[in-house]
Amino acid sequence: MSYFENFLKANQAYVELHGDLHLPIKPKTQVAIVTCMDSRLHVAPALGLALGDAHILRNAGGRVTEDMIRSLVISQQQMGTREIVVLHHTDCGAQTFENEAFRQHLKKELGVDVGNQDFLPFQDVEESVREDMLLLKRSPLIPNDVVISGAVYDVDTGWIQQVHL
Amino acid sequence: MSYFENFLKANQAYVELHGDLHLPIKPKTQVAIVTCMDSRLHVAPALGLALGDAHILRNAGGRVTEDMIRSLVISQQQMGTREIVVLHHTDCGAQTFENEAFRQHLKKELGVDVGNQDFLPFQDVEESVREDMLLLKRSPLIPNDVVISGAVYDVDTGWIQQVHL
Repeated sequence: MSYFENFLKANQAYVELHGDLHLPIKPKTQVAIVTCMDSRLHVAPALGLALGDAHILRNAGGRVTEDMIRSLVISQQQMGTREIVVLHHTDCGAQTFENEAFRQHLKKELGVDVGNQDFLPFQDVEESVREDMLLLKRSPLIPNDVVISGAVYDVDTGWIQQVHL
Repeated sequence: MSYFENFLKANQAYVELHGDLHLPIKPKTQVAIVTCMDSRLHVAPALGLALGDAHILRNAGGRVTEDMIRSLVISQQQMGTREIVVLHHTDCGAQTFENEAFRQHLKKELGVDVGNQDFLPFQDVEESVREDMLLLKRSPLIPNDVVISGAVYDVDTGWIQQVHL
């Protein structure tokens, strides 16, 4: 059994609503949002984004990794974005484990030794936002005039609260 | 000037609609969607996802990178997902450049030598979906019984078409 079939059915209804659009490839607001994969966060309605407004980048935790920087460099250099919002959230999966125990679990469950890989867990969500804002500010691949903001999304209320460096 | 202030204002209205929810941290459908950051794709409405339904992972191109695997491993081992959908799209930013020219651009514009870094551009979008499905199938960190589907989203019509391996 696969959920993918259900998604295809739901998509048929979406296509009717969507109609034929020709939006530009470059995001209208020139913003890239860096956030978590969490299922309780729907980024577009939570921030009031229309189709075509902003790039949305999501991984486990909304962490600034090498791949996140790769994506942001393409977003900025090819697609003209000039602003980044780091948006983490309450009750995050990245707060549910620690590296060493998780590595041992992977060895036991999957038979894979991941060495010293950092799965980027965190404890304090405001601290993780600040850490990732600093990584962006310090990256030579992100120009100094790019505006960087941080915030925390509350998965129970939908409320976004700014985090200052 | 920053767009972030506008997002905070839009979020005030969203909070009114959201109300107080207590959805589980584990996604209801046990699906993780791997897709692109593109601004013209709003994943939840396009697939009929409600809040709490599925993990949504997005980078430039929707490519299966080391960081994407990190996120999927957390999604599966900590949050119980058992299915992955690789969803690329038409008119992708990853089709607008080639590695060597992009690296030279970064050296000229930012003064940064990124060496041989692969920014993961592609030409054929169905081929890129298949490549990334195969990377998942071959990863020792993704169990063999995880269901993996692939598809292409049309940014002009909103239509999702399945891609078979």
